[in-house]
Amino acid sequence: MRAAVVAVGSELLSTDRLDTNSLRLAALLERHGVPLILKVVVGDDVAGIAEALADALRSARLVLVSGGLGPTADDVTREACARALGRTLAEDPEVWAAIERRFAAFGRAPSENNRRQALVVGGATVLPNPRGTAPGQRIDDGGRTIFLLPGVPFELDELAAAHLEPWLAERSGGRGRERRTLRTAMRPESDVDRALEPLYAEFGREAVTVLASPGEVRVRLWASGGAGERAARLDAMAARARALLGEAVFGEGDELTLEQVVGELLARAGVSLATAESCTGGLLAERLTRVPGASRYFPGGVVTYSNEQKVGLLDVPPGALAEHGAVSEPVVRAMAEGARRRFGAGYGAAITGIAGPEGGSAEKPVGTVHVAVAGPDGTVHRGLRLPGDRERIRWQASQAALELLRRRLLAAGGEKDA
Amino acid sequence: MRAAVVAVGSELLSTDRLDTNSLRLAALLERHGVPLILKVVVGDDVAGIAEALADALRSARLVLVSGGLGPTADDVTREACARALGRTLAEDPEVWAAIERRFAAFGRAPSENNRRQALVVGGATVLPNPRGTAPGQRIDDGGRTIFLLPGVPFELDELAAAHLEPWLAERSGGRGRERRTLRTAMRPESDVDRALEPLYAEFGREAVTVLASPGEVRVRLWASGGAGERAARLDAMAARARALLGEAVFGEGDELTLEQVVGELLARAGVSLATAESCTGGLLAERLTRVPGASRYFPGGVVTYSNEQKVGLLDVPPGALAEHGAVSEPVVRAMAEGARRRFGAGYGAAITGIAGPEGGSAEKPVGTVHVAVAGPDGTVHRGLRLPGDRERIRWQASQAALELLRRRLLAAGGEKDA
Repeated sequence: MRAAVVAVGSELLSTDRLDTNSLRLAALLERHGVPLILKVVVGDDVAGIAEALADALRSARLVLVSGGLGPTADDVTREACARALGRTLAEDPEVWAAIERRFAAFGRAPSENNRRQALVVGGATVLPNPRGTAPGQRIDDGGRTIFLLPGVPFELDELAAAHLEPWLAERSGGRGRERRTLRTAMRPESDVDRALEPLYAEFGREAVTVLASPGEVRVRLWASGGAGERAARLDAMAARARALLGEAVFGEGDELTLEQVVGELLARAGVSLATAESCTGGLLAERLTRVPGASRYFPGGVVTYSNEQKVGLLDVPPGALAEHGAVSEPVVRAMAEGARRRFGAGYGAAITGIAGPEGGSAEKPVGTVHVAVAGPDGTVHRGLRLPGDRERIRWQASQAALELLRRRLLAAGGEKDA
Repeated sequence: MRAAVVAVGSELLSTDRLDTNSLRLAALLERHGVPLILKVVVGDDVAGIAEALADALRSARLVLVSGGLGPTADDVTREACARALGRTLAEDPEVWAAIERRFAAFGRAPSENNRRQALVVGGATVLPNPRGTAPGQRIDDGGRTIFLLPGVPFELDELAAAHLEPWLAERSGGRGRERRTLRTAMRPESDVDRALEPLYAEFGREAVTVLASPGEVRVRLWASGGAGERAARLDAMAARARALLGEAVFGEGDELTLEQVVGELLARAGVSLATAESCTGGLLAERLTRVPGASRYFPGGVVTYSNEQKVGLLDVPPGALAEHGAVSEPVVRAMAEGARRRFGAGYGAAITGIAGPEGGSAEKPVGTVHVAVAGPDGTVHRGLRLPGDRERIRWQASQAALELLRRRLLAAGGEKDA
């Protein structure tokens, strides 16, 4: 079985909107091992939708349609589906009664417009929608199946989970494809790739995807089969990958952030962290405080954009600035130590660099960045040459400081445990 | 003439990638008044692409295909197009020579794979690609036209500007649709809408779109017709909208940011600004320093997450914290004044608030935020109740501080000019 997704809505053909529902549906299909071969976006037009649906049904036996189930005159997905399949479309008294009940619960009565939402394609199974007035519909048609789903993501998710997922699970017999993502920061893609060679040899190159983005490399592990088989294989692969990559793995899952991991380490150790930033202009502090509850370990930080403030607020020795310049190892070390002292914190993290586009020189080109972490066991430093534009350089600089901090906290924790 | 866009690439059917090239093409079509009626995404499969192309050609007379022109075996757009139209596909000696020259310029020779990129659909016009090895192709087919364009955005933009745009301009006779966007910050959508009523009456409701996002309302003005006619009408509409909205308009254009506008005002006035942040954790400083050259007017800022640091770094009176709490008008005023003093800056901007999800109370729920700006003419304050989650509250709080600052700088400039 192969699948197609049809997204309905003229706004999805505009210059600034994309159909993102298809990503949610693609993930669901992938979990159940159904290949997605086609995505279509079409406006609110009966003939256009009917044609897109008929076209999709020629190559896909499962077609998922989202949108066009609202109460207004331009919500015509139901009509288009009936037309494409040569079926009737009629008001369903039960659906209409359910809509009336839904409105009554809010002390209101449905308008005549809402009657459109009670129209059901001949032979369709109605899929109740507890999150909205428009029910979904499933139409089986000679070995082919069409799901009509609402376009509102919150409603789509509900109907997909309640009706599409079980339908797919029944057909896949629980077999499907699943992934797990290991995360690493500030490691070159080629290093990660080389380190993983034994994993490729053991589990197959196609079972691993290495994805690089600024300051980060993700390792995606894939497994197919039944749920238990998939989980066991992913566990084995993740264990092997972690053994090969060591401490470079900062965590698992696409949603995880490096600032969450660092925050967790700080909270667990019961120590605090202060920041001192130059070229990142507050990005490091901002990332740390994105995490709810950061006040447990983050008393604050300073942004010292000028040399004067590096001296005044952080006690950076004027001699170091004069001799080495603001973007240098001695200065970033003094900044980290100054932040730690100024805030009375367990750790101080500092960043200085040249984010561009101006300010570079032959000796210190744009992208030259120094980060340092001062702690109870002294101060560590890293010097970097980062690629990209201002935004990317700033992002990677904050990433480098967080990663240096994470390694430091791990080392301190290890020493304590030992 | 109606248009369809076909994006080719199996990666565009995955769970985390969307076809964004279609947005660039949609904007181009819109400028030339050509309605986009269909978007299709299809994998790297000859039969699938050929079918999608044939389907699109049934409803659209112009089909723009992006992707699948690379040198690898799965780049099969050329084959698919030839198949869909029943045409030949043959290596073009001139195209091959151009590819060889391109490689020679880098001191290399093309591989046998690159020969695929010299394949041309019978009767096609070759569209040279100075930014890559794969040329585009334009195929005219009985009143219908197909453009094959590269999938790499940087190359697509080049070919679209050099070949598609002139082709469209010739057909539209210069007639098309154009928009201009006015930007406002921290004004309720309903206020903007009400203020614009005379504009709707004068130019038609359909010529204006009001778009709300957190902390911002955009006013899009639309005009159709010839280039001169469009420009004159947009000028008239923009002038009228500015007259109705007054200083609420901070600028024009979708790319403009509030921090750019504030930075420009600071630079022009030759004054500096320091920041003091609590709940935004550095976001205000980070936004200000996104703008290249911010060091001209931004000496630095502090993030004082703890009360102790508000006292220690900003001289906030401990009595004000004890009596009113950290999230209060007296404290935010003292923070702004403290930042101004500490950094010896012309202005100080401060934010304190409850970003959540924890920390709210009946009296001060999550979303309670105070912002203040201290300057040579005293200190101004705004208290807000902001909706949304932690991220949205922080964003809107930074937006409110920037907007308060902008108004203050405008007022100061006006006084000086007067």
